Amino acid sequence: MRLPERITITEVGPRDGLQNEDLFFETPRKLELIARLAAAGLRRIEAASFVSPAAIPQMRDAREVITQVPRWPGVTYVALVPNERGARDAIAAGADELATVVSASETHNRRNVNRTIEESLAGIEKVAELAAAAALPWAGYVSTAFGCPYEGAVAPAQVLRVAARLRALGAYAVALGDTIGSADPRQVHTLVREVRDGLPDVPLRLHFHDTRGTGLANVLAAMDEGVASFDGSVGGLGGCPYAPGAAGNVATEDLVYMAHRMGIATGVDLAALIDVARWVESLVGRALPGRIKGAGEAVLRDSA
Amino acid sequence: MRLPERITITEVGPRDGLQNEDLFFETPRKLELIARLAAAGLRRIEAASFVSPAAIPQMRDAREVITQVPRWPGVTYVALVPNERGARDAIAAGADELATVVSASETHNRRNVNRTIEESLAGIEKVAELAAAAALPWAGYVSTAFGCPYEGAVAPAQVLRVAARLRALGAYAVALGDTIGSADPRQVHTLVREVRDGLPDVPLRLHFHDTRGTGLANVLAAMDEGVASFDGSVGGLGGCPYAPGAAGNVATEDLVYMAHRMGIATGVDLAALIDVARWVESLVGRALPGRIKGAGEAVLRDSA
Repeated sequence: MRLPERITITEVGPRDGLQNEDLFFETPRKLELIARLAAAGLRRIEAASFVSPAAIPQMRDAREVITQVPRWPGVTYVALVPNERGARDAIAAGADELATVVSASETHNRRNVNRTIEESLAGIEKVAELAAAAALPWAGYVSTAFGCPYEGAVAPAQVLRVAARLRALGAYAVALGDTIGSADPRQVHTLVREVRDGLPDVPLRLHFHDTRGTGLANVLAAMDEGVASFDGSVGGLGGCPYAPGAAGNVATEDLVYMAHRMGIATGVDLAALIDVARWVESLVGRALPGRIKGAGEAVLRDSA
Repeated sequence: MRLPERITITEVGPRDGLQNEDLFFETPRKLELIARLAAAGLRRIEAASFVSPAAIPQMRDAREVITQVPRWPGVTYVALVPNERGARDAIAAGADELATVVSASETHNRRNVNRTIEESLAGIEKVAELAAAAALPWAGYVSTAFGCPYEGAVAPAQVLRVAARLRALGAYAVALGDTIGSADPRQVHTLVREVRDGLPDVPLRLHFHDTRGTGLANVLAAMDEGVASFDGSVGGLGGCPYAPGAAGNVATEDLVYMAHRMGIATGVDLAALIDVARWVESLVGRALPGRIKGAGEAVLRDSA
């Protein structure tokens, strides 16, 4: 088993997490969440999505969040942008990096954003032009890369095709999204190899939802394939409102716990992050799926 | 990554699971649970523990359970026995196989059964004699093999030492128990190698608790080391009342889901097992930690 010495974590709780919560987090609360995540050592935080407020009301204060978020040395604030207009707004608000999304499956893309994959890619081309003009890096997410709630299996060749298009448009990294949380470790090996063999110079990131309990096993399989960049959501907040049965992302603190136990550096203060997870859980008023926040990290310390 | 073609699952929900539930499962209910698990295809079921009723009241009907449990072709009913008296009773009741337990850490063993490790091994020697006389196989569990709630880290050499003693006493298999759910995949690799190198001919079984979310990742790491025998608890029922912070075992249905998705046979009907998990959850009246029972397996079928 190959393991990296260090992994990069992109905390997506304030975006992918919150957009699936019924409770609206007022702007000051979002800012507090982001500040606490940064204080816990997270250096990449997806802070907002510049989507239509009608489509995702939880993100209606994206501009305020990006404008007002406390600036920390070395902290990158990522903004998800669905289209050219979102990119303009995100850049104007001061985002450090953009993220674009297109589905690997035609049906999911159409139901998610009412566009064909080609239409989405054409929109991403416009985003790429704006990002280039502003000298901002952008990552390309391929959602439903491991399975589609409407189409079922998604061919690795199709994922590679979309990933290659994103790279050709200028994405500095490609992220493979297990939108519905159906990936298994063998599939992770297979898909990562396919995409890496086709795009050997492209940094890969993995975005797992933990709908069926395989999240950390999938992370382990990806590490074994040389991937060292993962998304996580504090507490396991999150999901995708357009993917039936989806649940939260891999809980960041569980990912950090597993990494630290294996001697893999993350730069995150686990105890502080567990505190943030418990605080978020108290705010949303329901049990969040992350595990270490219930057990605590005492054993980690005793055993270290 | 090496993956087995098939894994053997020992369902421990009726024992390790129930003994940590406040709600007493009346004997007919236990028998119904066991029958439903067998009907779902589980062929090894730890059905009871012949412990002191004062220590673990939930297991006070162990004799009735083993005596009355429906006999299915090919189904092995395992009884946990803490001592000679328990072994006599389990054999008299008609158990197919026995399981013994000793901790790798002195402090946990003393707090768990008020004996030193040596005293426990002396007791297991008596159990082994009874098992041999009755021509019953028995497995030796080494609990706290990955960490102790009182001592912290447990040296792999100490785990090997205890495992070797169990083998020398006649255990047909050795099971390594992550009693407090603190194991990480790298540690699984290291410990499995240590024990296998020291006892190359001994079948190994892994018993993970999923206290910190690493359960299935640990299973994956063990598979990569050639292990093909795992314990699971339906719904994720279970824990260890003597290990602070412990939570349930890896949920059997999540383990089956991951295995099937990877093309690994289990012999289990996943849909039927999910039904059992949901039924058990309704009985205990609280959310059990297993994940697939919430999401369902529809995507699995669509994607297959």
